[in-house]
Amino acid sequence: MQKAKFVKDIKEGEQIRDLFLVSNKAVLSSNAGKAYISLALRDRTGQVECRVWDRAEEIAKRFDRDDIVEATGSAIQYQGRIQLKVHDVRKTEGEANLADFLPVTEKGIEPLWKELQALVRGLKDPDLSRLLARIFPDPPETETARRFRQAPGGKSMHHDYIGGLLEHTVSVAAICRFLSGHYEGVDADMLVAGALLHDIGKVGELSYDGAFDYTDEGRLLGHLYMGTEWVTAECARIDGFPREKAMLLKHMILSHHGELEYGSPKRPKTLEAVLLHFAENMDSKANAFLEAVGDMREGAAWTDYQRMFERYLYAGKKNV
Amino acid sequence: MQKAKFVKDIKEGEQIRDLFLVSNKAVLSSNAGKAYISLALRDRTGQVECRVWDRAEEIAKRFDRDDIVEATGSAIQYQGRIQLKVHDVRKTEGEANLADFLPVTEKGIEPLWKELQALVRGLKDPDLSRLLARIFPDPPETETARRFRQAPGGKSMHHDYIGGLLEHTVSVAAICRFLSGHYEGVDADMLVAGALLHDIGKVGELSYDGAFDYTDEGRLLGHLYMGTEWVTAECARIDGFPREKAMLLKHMILSHHGELEYGSPKRPKTLEAVLLHFAENMDSKANAFLEAVGDMREGAAWTDYQRMFERYLYAGKKNV
Amino acid sequence: MQKAKFVKDIKEGEQIRDLFLVSNKAVLSSNAGKAYISLALRDRTGQVECRVWDRAEEIAKRFDRDDIVEATGSAIQYQGRIQLKVHDVRKTEGEANLADFLPVTEKGIEPLWKELQALVRGLKDPDLSRLLARIFPDPPETETARRFRQAPGGKSMHHDYIGGLLEHTVSVAAICRFLSGHYEGVDADMLVAGALLHDIGKVGELSYDGAFDYTDEGRLLGHLYMGTEWVTAECARIDGFPREKAMLLKHMILSHHGELEYGSPKRPKTLEAVLLHFAENMDSKANAFLEAVGDMREGAAWTDYQRMFERYLYAGKKNV
Amino acid sequence: MQKAKFVKDIKEGEQIRDLFLVSNKAVLSSNAGKAYISLALRDRTGQVECRVWDRAEEIAKRFDRDDIVEATGSAIQYQGRIQLKVHDVRKTEGEANLADFLPVTEKGIEPLWKELQALVRGLKDPDLSRLLARIFPDPPETETARRFRQAPGGKSMHHDYIGGLLEHTVSVAAICRFLSGHYEGVDADMLVAGALLHDIGKVGELSYDGAFDYTDEGRLLGHLYMGTEWVTAECARIDGFPREKAMLLKHMILSHHGELEYGSPKRPKTLEAVLLHFAENMDSKANAFLEAVGDMREGAAWTDYQRMFERYLYAGKKNV
Amino acid sequence: MQKAKFVKDIKEGEQIRDLFLVSNKAVLSSNAGKAYISLALRDRTGQVECRVWDRAEEIAKRFDRDDIVEATGSAIQYQGRIQLKVHDVRKTEGEANLADFLPVTEKGIEPLWKELQALVRGLKDPDLSRLLARIFPDPPETETARRFRQAPGGKSMHHDYIGGLLEHTVSVAAICRFLSGHYEGVDADMLVAGALLHDIGKVGELSYDGAFDYTDEGRLLGHLYMGTEWVTAECARIDGFPREKAMLLKHMILSHHGELEYGSPKRPKTLEAVLLHFAENMDSKANAFLEAVGDMREGAAWTDYQRMFERYLYAGKKNV
Amino acid sequence: MQKAKFVKDIKEGEQIRDLFLVSNKAVLSSNAGKAYISLALRDRTGQVECRVWDRAEEIAKRFDRDDIVEATGSAIQYQGRIQLKVHDVRKTEGEANLADFLPVTEKGIEPLWKELQALVRGLKDPDLSRLLARIFPDPPETETARRFRQAPGGKSMHHDYIGGLLEHTVSVAAICRFLSGHYEGVDADMLVAGALLHDIGKVGELSYDGAFDYTDEGRLLGHLYMGTEWVTAECARIDGFPREKAMLLKHMILSHHGELEYGSPKRPKTLEAVLLHFAENMDSKANAFLEAVGDMREGAAWTDYQRMFERYLYAGKKNV
Repeated sequence: MQKAKFVKDIKEGEQIRDLFLVSNKAVLSSNAGKAYISLALRDRTGQVECRVWDRAEEIAKRFDRDDIVEATGSAIQYQGRIQLKVHDVRKTEGEANLADFLPVTEKGIEPLWKELQALVRGLKDPDLSRLLARIFPDPPETETARRFRQAPGGKSMHHDYIGGLLEHTVSVAAICRFLSGHYEGVDADMLVAGALLHDIGKVGELSYDGAFDYTDEGRLLGHLYMGTEWVTAECARIDGFPREKAMLLKHMILSHHGELEYGSPKRPKTLEAVLLHFAENMDSKANAFLEAVGDMREGAAWTDYQRMFERYLYAGKKNV
Repeated sequence: MQKAKFVKDIKEGEQIRDLFLVSNKAVLSSNAGKAYISLALRDRTGQVECRVWDRAEEIAKRFDRDDIVEATGSAIQYQGRIQLKVHDVRKTEGEANLADFLPVTEKGIEPLWKELQALVRGLKDPDLSRLLARIFPDPPETETARRFRQAPGGKSMHHDYIGGLLEHTVSVAAICRFLSGHYEGVDADMLVAGALLHDIGKVGELSYDGAFDYTDEGRLLGHLYMGTEWVTAECARIDGFPREKAMLLKHMILSHHGELEYGSPKRPKTLEAVLLHFAENMDSKANAFLEAVGDMREGAAWTDYQRMFERYLYAGKKNV
Repeated sequence: MQKAKFVKDIKEGEQIRDLFLVSNKAVLSSNAGKAYISLALRDRTGQVECRVWDRAEEIAKRFDRDDIVEATGSAIQYQGRIQLKVHDVRKTEGEANLADFLPVTEKGIEPLWKELQALVRGLKDPDLSRLLARIFPDPPETETARRFRQAPGGKSMHHDYIGGLLEHTVSVAAICRFLSGHYEGVDADMLVAGALLHDIGKVGELSYDGAFDYTDEGRLLGHLYMGTEWVTAECARIDGFPREKAMLLKHMILSHHGELEYGSPKRPKTLEAVLLHFAENMDSKANAFLEAVGDMREGAAWTDYQRMFERYLYAGKKNV
Repeated sequence: MQKAKFVKDIKEGEQIRDLFLVSNKAVLSSNAGKAYISLALRDRTGQVECRVWDRAEEIAKRFDRDDIVEATGSAIQYQGRIQLKVHDVRKTEGEANLADFLPVTEKGIEPLWKELQALVRGLKDPDLSRLLARIFPDPPETETARRFRQAPGGKSMHHDYIGGLLEHTVSVAAICRFLSGHYEGVDADMLVAGALLHDIGKVGELSYDGAFDYTDEGRLLGHLYMGTEWVTAECARIDGFPREKAMLLKHMILSHHGELEYGSPKRPKTLEAVLLHFAENMDSKANAFLEAVGDMREGAAWTDYQRMFERYLYAGKKNV
Repeated sequence: MQKAKFVKDIKEGEQIRDLFLVSNKAVLSSNAGKAYISLALRDRTGQVECRVWDRAEEIAKRFDRDDIVEATGSAIQYQGRIQLKVHDVRKTEGEANLADFLPVTEKGIEPLWKELQALVRGLKDPDLSRLLARIFPDPPETETARRFRQAPGGKSMHHDYIGGLLEHTVSVAAICRFLSGHYEGVDADMLVAGALLHDIGKVGELSYDGAFDYTDEGRLLGHLYMGTEWVTAECARIDGFPREKAMLLKHMILSHHGELEYGSPKRPKTLEAVLLHFAENMDSKANAFLEAVGDMREGAAWTDYQRMFERYLYAGKKNV
Repeated sequence: MQKAKFVKDIKEGEQIRDLFLVSNKAVLSSNAGKAYISLALRDRTGQVECRVWDRAEEIAKRFDRDDIVEATGSAIQYQGRIQLKVHDVRKTEGEANLADFLPVTEKGIEPLWKELQALVRGLKDPDLSRLLARIFPDPPETETARRFRQAPGGKSMHHDYIGGLLEHTVSVAAICRFLSGHYEGVDADMLVAGALLHDIGKVGELSYDGAFDYTDEGRLLGHLYMGTEWVTAECARIDGFPREKAMLLKHMILSHHGELEYGSPKRPKTLEAVLLHFAENMDSKANAFLEAVGDMREGAAWTDYQRMFERYLYAGKKNV
């Protein structure tokens, strides 16, 4: 079965029979003491609240959070919002296209991957070149490379969509390539290589087979540690990889949050680490700004309150 | 008289008769109760401690701090450093070339000014274009433009040399021009114009006719306020300059330190203000990093402690 | 039509036909898919939630947020609170008395204005005297003076009522007049003038024609900047206004929040600026304390949690 | 013997035989291995460095830090400052007038005491009136009252002179009396009583029989705790002193530093405690500002860096 | 009447007639304008929301918050939770067993009291021994000792149950006894005595006759101050209690929160005070961790967000 | 040659010919332009300033910082301190006993190693037991184990002596063993294993073959990262080491500084990590307290200002 109707297009009164990702599921009891299911179903265009009033206990056994399901029901309005009154839910067999159910980068995973490959090919240092080609093989035949192309850039703050990690990485690396020409005395290959690897630990920190979340290891060790350790392992697999270069690269990954209180156990102490920190921080904020503007209500000049910025943002009179 | 011998070239035992800038002057009493002058003389290559033991009271009347003087004396060693035993000091007449006595940008004021003019000419918005051409006329026939070309970028933290403000401004604006192509949705002209004007208030915040220092107004109002107020005045002199554009430009200047605790009374709330803040901060840090590396002792891998960064910085094994 | 019944006097079951200020308006859809209007209507005694169930789309076109309207309906109880079931809404013609619809200072605008005029007349310094008489003409024939008399002192924190800015200004200036006698070495006229002008920027930072809110310029530049710039402009209009006095006055306005993190780009560096900061801060807190006590439930010794103070406040056993 | 020559009047070459307070004393060894005494002698006008080169070990046994001694010697210049070459030191017998040796309030202890008594007599609440009359009897026949009149207001930050505590207390109480009329709803007697008692703990926190220092109890418990405990004890000695009033008074003392990080274990939660905190803080800062201006070098517009304010202060062009 | 059915055992549909503690009570109006009572009833196993729809005004007069009442009604489900529809409420006569209605330490008050007595008997210093025996007499015949055995350790953060203060005290003192053997140079008796007394002020800071809350004195003075003052009073009642020992003990109590911003007006400055602070802090956190794990939903590896820790806590795969 | 005379025993006038560690060396020029060597020589009892006035350039070539040298000279007094006028310096051949030249733990490396082995043998978990036995083999036949026994616990803050890391590790692990019995629900083996490994990264973070300093890797990656990565590598060498246990152990090492701002990229989220953090922090502070007391001048009750504590510490009247 193919996905046909998307969440943002559902209208009151319509009959629905379509595929969704289960992003939340709870079995509750009604006033009258009868069990019902409170569900959240989502696809890449949004999320909709649902209720299963009949045969709740039986239906609840058929599926779990993060499953792709076929749901049948009708759309009603409740307190001004669309809600689905669901009659039946069945787990789908076979592999679904995750990009139908989760938001995905608008820039396209393939074009971004090509940009990344161009950045990798631009490295002249033979050690870094070999390392990066190992980590980002083209075609992406390793598990890590495949997951890297899918991973979101974050759970909710910025680049929180499929391909977000790839998009963020390519953007930061492109800024770093510019900076390596803009300032004298920069080790260009080290800076670009550090940019390409800085968030590699997110491949293991986040789970994104269904709804985005942190893994246990992600919460206990974090992507700064995980990525740095992983680069250690990859360097060790390359004969004669110079110790000093490995140390500088690892320092960049470990320090890229810039300050201890943002989770970097060491602050940037090389020029390349300093520049990477700024490029990375700027790119996160620019992406979050553009997402906030994208979410604005029509006619507004100001966004809603943005927790990441701790302020309202001004998009100007364009919308008004 | 022309400057002949520079401070960094003075050797023990030499007889000196040359021009210097007086960067400090105090009349003290010796153990024996006799007056003497403790002087600091400088040129663009450095500073040397001096003593005037004879006729101190008479000689002291002839000159003040920030004067260019002709000093006669002999070079001795004291506690491992060169000191001048000065016999005579006379104030010079006529205009001296400040660039002989204060450090000056290595990139050259003329080439930087040409880059700035190219950035101004690249603006397509007619209002911003008119405003910037008024503020930075070519040739620089206004007092402000002339002072802007000479001003240091700071008293001691970064770009602390003649032409430093110009160098910093051009660098930030070039980064911003790159960013306006890198991200969608950026108002490119607004971003570059804001970059070109962001530190204009430093023209009045710092005095740099002799040693660098703050003006009273600089300490009481600061360059963020002074620059913003000045842009208000310039916009008012242009017929029909749109109120919204003036507001957005002023917001960028006022908010470019990024956080309240760094002296911005408002934090960046437009995309252009957010990007300017990062570009500006990065450029200050990159310049300070490169200056710290330039000051390193031979054979060292680490710089001295850097107060601006609150850490030691690593330049790598290159020097070792 | 005259305002007759006030919000705080509406009882369950009554029929209402009266004037209100629209402080919020949204068109929503009911469960059944039918449009209705969710309204908040207010007058100076409080605010009441309303619903328009019939002819919602037609009625919604007739008025907007911040309009004064005549509403017809009946009062019901919903979840323990009074709500209006509204049958009809019409926008009123002609000018309404804002003081009927927004809370207003209990001290009276006229008596406060007289106190302010007495403070202005008490200035002996001819420059400051001329400046203040220009800014606060009596009678208040300029737009600024008229707006200054109406403006609230803040959106929600303290003095958040019509005339609040005037009340706060007079109170701070009176404290400053006392302090100028209490301490030696104070420039009394400078201190009182600074007190009278310190929040003048709020005239443009806040909009208060309907519900209180910030203007775009208020959010992007802030009242500290706006007030200081405005004083620059006013001083420029007075022939020979001394540069040093203007600088000192501007410093007081710009620094009166006391610390960078509270939005002052410079901290107080003159005795008058230090004293003004304390007087201003104390008056805001004292007003907020008294408002919190005024809002207490009967029988309570402690106020609700006060966000401005980040604590509960103790009014003592008086109420108990 | 009477004090004759004061430190600020000693000139190079003079023979000295006079009384001083020993504010520092150390026995050291010269290069040649010979013992000598390094001394600091002070009177109310300042402090002078001294050396005893002959019979150092014998002379050192005769006196200690904080003694009043008669010193004989001659004044020389050393590195631009006056130093005493001391020939002999003898401890004086009998009681000396501490006010000759330590700086003392310029407002006079007696006039300040009279002001304080007037403030006490102005209290109408019989409980508070009885309490204050006990603590500040007139004439000051208790040990505490006598010490209270002498104590400095601090070790070095503000009011750091004999009578400084009294001066600060009277000034704060006078401001509080003004505020109790300025705001409605203030318990005037509670506010003034709290002001009079707020720093009473400093009587035991500081030692000031010689040079100012902290007592062990002062460092381990602090004047906020000590003063509050002491008021508990005094209230307990008054029959029927109301528990609520004692609690409110103690809260004011304990909370007058305003924030936890300034050493108040509770923040102000009553209107009187809030006002006292502001009045107290303002008075400390105003006094420190005036002392900083008093210490300025002639011709300067800016003070030296003030650690208490973490900034330079501007006294204006008056001195220039 | 004896307590029979506990909150956690109430099932939908059951008829209830049992004793409860009233932890909240409010009289509200229904949509229809009819008064009803919103109640929270609790016992040691939890709390249940209730409504009294009939004769609300009459019934409301019979009891207050913190009373033990006999309630009659029936259990229904509302939004997935059990609620009581209450028909009648009567206040009980006679003394109830508080331990039926509030959560109580699982370690038992008697065993904990025995441990505490053993710790007191272990003191060798005669002064401290006498003091502690006075404060913790066995049997607990004083009001303070009786209240100390019942008091919770906190309102909601940690040890928030009857006997919690005793449990926390005994745990901290046992750790301190271990530490006094682990480190050289520790005054073992001072450390253990300080541990036993450190939170004694909570006896008066918290009220726990019904629901836990702060007393007025607790909010205005706090348990650090109250406990220290109380030790002063107890030491004063012992002839010849050494001043130095009292000072050290008081310092430990006053400083045990470790930092000014956590409410200690002085930070720990003796070895015993430093160790007590760590032991105390560790015990609070360990208890809070264990409570959080105890509250976990079955099958979870992570706790809910813990406000005290500002993080999620990991209990591991044991539950999963 | 054997070390004979120790620094603390050198008296003025003595002739010295003995072994020292060179902790600082600089070739400078005298006033007269002649080269001389400024040296700092140390042994385990302290450090002495030295000058080599004759044949400085020749002698300077023979040795470097961190060498053990034989120095010949005579002891003089300079500004009250002993200084060596050195005539000759020669580098020694063969291996010296580092413990003669650097301060060493007073508890003895062998007894501490025995305690550590007992703690390792006490582990019951077979995986952790195997891991710890690998890392701490007995006898210490690996390079890491040998270095671990010698390493200091820090550069200057606490445990800054040979064997300090071992002493600190054993002390923390002993506290943790106690805590694992004191609290229920603790995984005792995990807690003790984490304690034994928590600072293992310091083996590579610090260099201590001569004077203590940080390695490049220590400054760029830090001991938290380095230790965690190292445990990853060791676990990987053990067949079937459970992934969950490795993760928990690594989390403890990475989080043991407790807060992001103290350099832990993740805060403690398991009970064992929470307890380890407190035990570790307490032990560092207790050691620093005892060292500060050990350094006190005779007759003092208060230590000098302690930068680690940001306060003066009170040792009591014992010394007085």
